Amino acid sequence: MGFDPGLATLGYGVIEKGKSLKPSMIDYGIISTPKTENLAVRLCMLEEGVKQIVAKFKPDEIAVEELFFAKNITTGINVAHARGVLLLTAVKECGRLYEYTPLQIKQALTGYGRADKHQIQAMVKSYLNLKAIPRPDDAADALAVALCHAQTNKLGKLFSI
Amino acid sequence: MGFDPGLATLGYGVIEKGKSLKPSMIDYGIISTPKTENLAVRLCMLEEGVKQIVAKFKPDEIAVEELFFAKNITTGINVAHARGVLLLTAVKECGRLYEYTPLQIKQALTGYGRADKHQIQAMVKSYLNLKAIPRPDDAADALAVALCHAQTNKLGKLFSI
Repeated sequence: MGFDPGLATLGYGVIEKGKSLKPSMIDYGIISTPKTENLAVRLCMLEEGVKQIVAKFKPDEIAVEELFFAKNITTGINVAHARGVLLLTAVKECGRLYEYTPLQIKQALTGYGRADKHQIQAMVKSYLNLKAIPRPDDAADALAVALCHAQTNKLGKLFSI
Repeated sequence: MGFDPGLATLGYGVIEKGKSLKPSMIDYGIISTPKTENLAVRLCMLEEGVKQIVAKFKPDEIAVEELFFAKNITTGINVAHARGVLLLTAVKECGRLYEYTPLQIKQALTGYGRADKHQIQAMVKSYLNLKAIPRPDDAADALAVALCHAQTNKLGKLFSI
């Protein structure tokens, strides 16, 4: 299971790696929280949403992208608040959490460290034999980190308790 | 109860506002997490520490400083991860959480929006009739936000669930 952290929209993607080389898609989607709610309530909603999704799919492992700030600091703070709650909840509910850098994800999916968002999404569609690119972007990004975990054979940094 | 968020060191300060005008100090201290542990484990340690302290002192209200980034982005990301867990845990355990900007804290304690760290700490010592400035800084900062909450009569932004 992969997660793409965010306060307004947190994406998740579930894949299965069976005996075949290619992983298959199980589900994807988002947990969203309304801007009209206060930050603490939104963090509680994210915790509850992550708990429910992990309980539903019972993943063997969870993969999350490492956080880098580049553009907007305010958005970055919000994402990091949400990501703190995500990491806490994911590791408590699943026990095996892996972190991947954006570079690792790009290289795992396209072989190219400077691939753009669209190239990554096209590879998600191709790897999982989907008819269209998953929407919204947050769900596609969550599938991308899950695929990175599967394709690299768990190369990421392991957070376990 | 006031908290000063941080990943390596999270400060807390407990004060009581009785019938007298001046609040009195109950306790202060820190929850610390080792750099040798992974991020997810450290977030679990913070959650557990906050839970225990809130359970011990059963505060009516909790006050936390709003987060602004200025200096180091990496430190900022870590603080925001920790702060997400702090807000989640505090609101779940106490129910009434207030947020104060650095400006509100400075003005409440010194009447001056550009007061420096040392001036704030001197006022914490003075307001609470302490013999020395509380150490470490994180604990003094936590007492400062608790005092701001008491002195401004709950002026901060309320996060409640």
